[in-house]
Amino acid sequence: MVERIEGGVTAPEGFTAAGVACGIKASGLDLALLVATPAARAAGIFTTNLAVAAPVVVTKEHLRRSEGRTKAVVVNSGCANACTGPSGLEVARSMADATAQIVGCPPEQVLVSSTGVIGAPLDAAKIKAGVDSAARSLGRDQHTAAAEAIMTTDPWAKETAVRADTPAGSFHVGGMAKGAGMIEPNMATMLAFLTTDAEIEPETLRRALREAADPTFNAITVDGETSTNDMVLLLAGGGSGVRIDDEHYPRFVEALHAVCHELALGIVRGGEGASKLVSIHVTGAASVDDAQQAAKAMANSPLVKTAVHGEDPNWGRLVAVAGRAGVAFDQTRARVFVGAMELFGHEIVHADREPEAAAHLKQKEVTLTVDLGTGGTASFTAWTCDFSAEYVRINADYRT
Amino acid sequence: MVERIEGGVTAPEGFTAAGVACGIKASGLDLALLVATPAARAAGIFTTNLAVAAPVVVTKEHLRRSEGRTKAVVVNSGCANACTGPSGLEVARSMADATAQIVGCPPEQVLVSSTGVIGAPLDAAKIKAGVDSAARSLGRDQHTAAAEAIMTTDPWAKETAVRADTPAGSFHVGGMAKGAGMIEPNMATMLAFLTTDAEIEPETLRRALREAADPTFNAITVDGETSTNDMVLLLAGGGSGVRIDDEHYPRFVEALHAVCHELALGIVRGGEGASKLVSIHVTGAASVDDAQQAAKAMANSPLVKTAVHGEDPNWGRLVAVAGRAGVAFDQTRARVFVGAMELFGHEIVHADREPEAAAHLKQKEVTLTVDLGTGGTASFTAWTCDFSAEYVRINADYRT
Repeated sequence: MVERIEGGVTAPEGFTAAGVACGIKASGLDLALLVATPAARAAGIFTTNLAVAAPVVVTKEHLRRSEGRTKAVVVNSGCANACTGPSGLEVARSMADATAQIVGCPPEQVLVSSTGVIGAPLDAAKIKAGVDSAARSLGRDQHTAAAEAIMTTDPWAKETAVRADTPAGSFHVGGMAKGAGMIEPNMATMLAFLTTDAEIEPETLRRALREAADPTFNAITVDGETSTNDMVLLLAGGGSGVRIDDEHYPRFVEALHAVCHELALGIVRGGEGASKLVSIHVTGAASVDDAQQAAKAMANSPLVKTAVHGEDPNWGRLVAVAGRAGVAFDQTRARVFVGAMELFGHEIVHADREPEAAAHLKQKEVTLTVDLGTGGTASFTAWTCDFSAEYVRINADYRT
Repeated sequence: MVERIEGGVTAPEGFTAAGVACGIKASGLDLALLVATPAARAAGIFTTNLAVAAPVVVTKEHLRRSEGRTKAVVVNSGCANACTGPSGLEVARSMADATAQIVGCPPEQVLVSSTGVIGAPLDAAKIKAGVDSAARSLGRDQHTAAAEAIMTTDPWAKETAVRADTPAGSFHVGGMAKGAGMIEPNMATMLAFLTTDAEIEPETLRRALREAADPTFNAITVDGETSTNDMVLLLAGGGSGVRIDDEHYPRFVEALHAVCHELALGIVRGGEGASKLVSIHVTGAASVDDAQQAAKAMANSPLVKTAVHGEDPNWGRLVAVAGRAGVAFDQTRARVFVGAMELFGHEIVHADREPEAAAHLKQKEVTLTVDLGTGGTASFTAWTCDFSAEYVRINADYRT
């Protein structure tokens, strides 16, 4: 059984966290520290963007050099330390060094992460002071402060935790994430930090993370953008004493999936300017890849997202996207549902059902379903938010 | 020499036009008629969307059956006649039949086109009455009425004309277009109707149209959407007596390009909610395909388009798009210019130049240049508009 519990990254045994203000942002918490006692196994998924930020380079390097052994994760918001050249790499390394010194481990056992404006230099002195202050604030009750410290334009902190019961005992999985903008379903596309007190081999840990991330973090989009800084890290401490063998693996993935699912949907709910969570379900596809490609195209379509914002069941825009998505599609057999109402199917328009469909769109969580009409049975669900004038305002004024 | 002249589709000899109101839209002109005397040679480029509207199906069929001989083009706005099944095809055919009857030609010499809401039935009786009324209004001075009648959310009518001089005499090219939304650089992606009084073979006509459309209509984007209805038609009447042989072909393409360029940029300037025309110039690419793909990715990026709207020289967003565009890219040698100011290059940030770059962005026409840093010399220019809260308002409320 997997049950939702209170808490975040410190819900599993063996983890403490802190969130402090060190002056990188004009105001608010901007540095989070997560410490594993003892050091944990770690696995990561990273941005696919070729413009890769310094902290991503350093964290990948440290994961390799430490063979996936991690004592601490340090994250700042307000500055991405991206497009900062060799000096940016130096600052990212000094961020790990300062943390390693204070928590007492080799530098490669510290993973670093940054989010915020691209191209601005990250102030190493502020980071060092922040790490000192965070180390003094570490506590199992500081998980929400940590989740707040990694926010940029996020409207609220995103954290969650679950307890999973097995015949061998219980283990926990917790997590925190930041999202808001530059979110697109193409591998790690935001920051998420996950913890567990299950005991698990590195190879199995990586496999489980990939399995849980694909239908969650990789199925969401806010604006189709992939950031230079995105990463998902999973730390397994082993404090519960529950060893994840073949028998317990499905339960572990189930627990991890539950945490990733809630954080991923939280990112979409808190998307820049978002007022609705939109599930886009594509069925009748020739392959899962086709279903995913079509679902993502719809989830990123400004015309679909503005129609949802306007609570207008303009199903024609979904058909238009299906037709241009580059996948097998048969307009004579395609069907479009808004909520449970079929508005178009087999070339017949059900205009009389539009009022009911419009009523569905007035809710905070809405579902759009498109059957591609190929006769295939593959499907995929993507999640996105509506597109509002507020998104434009946030992103036009981001740096001012 | 190619010189801009007053007028639109009737500037070339042998064409008359009309624009009337037939009640498909709640108010305003909504039916345009273009007649060639004598019948013209015609070539077309059509939407690549697999969800293809009835008028596109019928027009392609008529071009084939008539072997590219066209007497009239009839266009309505307010209803796309898309996703309307067999009955929609019947209406599109009846639209051609009614026009053929009144202008006196076989039905396959009439091309039809529609734009507006998807999924609503097109009223054949209104179209017939509109065609009757338009036929009575035909005139060489009615080109602007025709250009107005094809508008949907366009803020103004788009038409232009040129005169080209050759040793064998002068010929003319004219055109009108509609754009506004669902505009993406992927073959014919809006409606454009072009005329010329040059005399030209069908095969050469098609080649010239493709050559002129690729760097113009296929290089613009408003929102990355491809419509179900898009087409570009070019009618060559021969009234000038100038025959386009190999010698005159470059001049013909030059004249056609001038008309397409002005109409294409007009579509972007009049993009939904647009306040700025943005030229995105990608250089240093490994291939023209790479340059085009990167330029289009930037032109469709909501983060780039909102930054321009906010007049914020946030060059980091251009680097982030370059890195995710799926093309060869070297972040250590990449360069980004806003106007003439290099803000980032070879990993060095020129923050002191931002005020000058911000001043450039305050203009109505702005230029962004990204060198991908591959050492290659291929380049491509795409055009887009900024992304405003007004775009959201237009598309959230489109059907209400």
